[in-house]
Amino acid sequence: MALIVQKYGGTSVADPDRMRNVAKHIAALRAQGTDVVAVVSAMGKATDNLVELARQVSSNPQGREMDMLLTTGERISMSLLCMALHDVGCDAMSFTGSQVGIITDTSHTKAKILEIKGDRVREALAAGKVAVVAGFQGVSTEREITTLGRGGSDTTAVALAAALKADACEIYTDVTGVFSADPRLVPQARKLKELSFDEMLEMAGAGSKVLALRSVEFARNHNVPIHVRSSFTWEEGTWVRGIDEERKRKMEEPIISGVVHDVGEAKMTLLGVPDRPGVSALLFESLAAANVNVDMIVQNTSIDGTTDISFTLPIGDIKTAEPILKKVGDEVGATGINKDENIVKLSLVGAGMKSSPGIAAKMFRVLADNGVNIEMISTSTIRISVVVERTQLEKAVRALHTAFDLDSGEDYSAPLPDRK
Amino acid sequence: MALIVQKYGGTSVADPDRMRNVAKHIAALRAQGTDVVAVVSAMGKATDNLVELARQVSSNPQGREMDMLLTTGERISMSLLCMALHDVGCDAMSFTGSQVGIITDTSHTKAKILEIKGDRVREALAAGKVAVVAGFQGVSTEREITTLGRGGSDTTAVALAAALKADACEIYTDVTGVFSADPRLVPQARKLKELSFDEMLEMAGAGSKVLALRSVEFARNHNVPIHVRSSFTWEEGTWVRGIDEERKRKMEEPIISGVVHDVGEAKMTLLGVPDRPGVSALLFESLAAANVNVDMIVQNTSIDGTTDISFTLPIGDIKTAEPILKKVGDEVGATGINKDENIVKLSLVGAGMKSSPGIAAKMFRVLADNGVNIEMISTSTIRISVVVERTQLEKAVRALHTAFDLDSGEDYSAPLPDRK
Repeated sequence: MALIVQKYGGTSVADPDRMRNVAKHIAALRAQGTDVVAVVSAMGKATDNLVELARQVSSNPQGREMDMLLTTGERISMSLLCMALHDVGCDAMSFTGSQVGIITDTSHTKAKILEIKGDRVREALAAGKVAVVAGFQGVSTEREITTLGRGGSDTTAVALAAALKADACEIYTDVTGVFSADPRLVPQARKLKELSFDEMLEMAGAGSKVLALRSVEFARNHNVPIHVRSSFTWEEGTWVRGIDEERKRKMEEPIISGVVHDVGEAKMTLLGVPDRPGVSALLFESLAAANVNVDMIVQNTSIDGTTDISFTLPIGDIKTAEPILKKVGDEVGATGINKDENIVKLSLVGAGMKSSPGIAAKMFRVLADNGVNIEMISTSTIRISVVVERTQLEKAVRALHTAFDLDSGEDYSAPLPDRK
Repeated sequence: MALIVQKYGGTSVADPDRMRNVAKHIAALRAQGTDVVAVVSAMGKATDNLVELARQVSSNPQGREMDMLLTTGERISMSLLCMALHDVGCDAMSFTGSQVGIITDTSHTKAKILEIKGDRVREALAAGKVAVVAGFQGVSTEREITTLGRGGSDTTAVALAAALKADACEIYTDVTGVFSADPRLVPQARKLKELSFDEMLEMAGAGSKVLALRSVEFARNHNVPIHVRSSFTWEEGTWVRGIDEERKRKMEEPIISGVVHDVGEAKMTLLGVPDRPGVSALLFESLAAANVNVDMIVQNTSIDGTTDISFTLPIGDIKTAEPILKKVGDEVGATGINKDENIVKLSLVGAGMKSSPGIAAKMFRVLADNGVNIEMISTSTIRISVVVERTQLEKAVRALHTAFDLDSGEDYSAPLPDRK
């Protein structure tokens, strides 16, 4: 019997009406003979509301209490979804992270999953029931309630799918899949039928919000096929999975999956740094120790024995990073620091890029022809990212989308075989 | 070191402001060197809102899922209160019913406490922390989350106080104590300084909503002194406890504590029942089997071999009771059934009533002089209850309050010794 793990995000269970729609969808799938495990997020803005309550009673809430508070959101969703399932005649049972046996480390508010026992879920499935599981939460090795941090529910779903050896993990959200660019910026943007894990990783790393990076890493490591789709239209979405032979053959040609942008980052620079070994190490070790999430790093060629080191980081991390930069700058004799929040990171993602150096050149040419100045460049085997001025965002994304033939008709990937 | 178990009801933790007030109060008590365990209810209308959500997704929510859903309310309260305590520099740790080790039977939505382990609470207190505990919830012998039903948080607090051998259990609510009558009906009503467990039991049974009957029973059985008081004014409230020698001496005279009324009941009657053994047994066994909560029972003297059996029950139970009455009536050959929702139960409660038969006579006389017709009568050693027409409520309560000298100045009980 096929087993599907599904994950329903906050918008998919935002109110009783949506909850009943989800229940009907699950019941129909169950009636076809598929085993279903449904992982749920908190309803709509429930988590935000709880965070706001915490802020109102405390200037610095403790992690343990924060986790206890926030995990209630998913519990409410899971018990309501079970009730809705019962109401459409579908037998179901809810499980907290602790009841599922999602064992994590002891890092409150950003715990890592160590192990999934899953015995009670297996028993429920064996008894013909749908198992509804609270996303985002686990229980630590010290028996405290923990949360998995950002993208936690996606991670719960993928990890459960791996532990239960599910046939696929469906991630239901409020968009119909992964697009070749943000449809709000590029009207011609197309839904992608299929992506490899690596491509999806690069897209998530480049700023695509559809899937949490962490859950894609988990899916790749455990080879769990992910199907991203909408709980509003229920239409076929985007598959993210290992590359099969047919895909590999087609990948000989450079193919661009999409243009991704990220407006959540800023650029900081340490100026006039003496060009000697160990400076970068000192800087980025210090930033890592303070949990600053550095993304792109660029060091210019040395001129007259000094150089500039630039990097991008989430805007929210600037406060933490600034004193560190000052301190390291003083220690190594830098001439100053600079910060710029008025940037955007643009990335082209696509398999096969590695063997086609012409892609990068074409990207830079397109941007230049449109008067867009490039401030930083970073590349991987299947991604090229540039940092440009924020005001250039729309023009740049549209120009790239058109130049790389993403506007045109057919998606590159072969029609999907029936996966049922 | 003194140990106080406190319970904060929904109005006491209704919003972040109130939560911070409660935190300051606890911190001040802790700073005086008293160990504190704080049991919390869900915030304001949180439980009602969850019940409404459940109703919107399901016509008949399963008990297990309902318990999972409702227990989130107290979890939110307890973690927020802990954060607020940390914020005023008071070390605190929250515990769910499960973490406290409140072991219950397996009756979802109305579980009974079997045992309280309390090890983690004791450890927290030993480490100098305030322990904040989610009220209303436990974990069953089958490791499922359960709720204790109506008055559950009061019961949690009293049971914890018994298990931890606390010096007292403070119940914080939105009224300043137990009154000689409902102050909304009787402006002269006075706050009582002290009541015995038995008097409080009779008052709760007669309709006083200040303390849940069940928690008073528990307190009496384990001799836990209860102090009912307000978290809005923090003034001295009403003590409920075992009777000391001084009280016993004073109790030689009949003393009325108060007039209690209950508008939540209806009267049902099985008419023209053949007067033979076993009829009452059959009726009340059938009602008990359907969990109908029968209160007063009156059977009139037999006339021409038939009799009427009347009883009162919560208005919400009429739907369940009606078909049972019809069925039993048919079996025993009754002539019909009758129901009346337009009633109110009035009770006089006071120790020493037993040895003073004049009290009942005086009560009936006062009602008769005021034109109030009595429909049913029931007495216990320290209570007399009558059922009268709902429209007579205010007139009857005021007349009784005045006639039994409850309007006048001083409370009957001696000034309280310092209990700190």
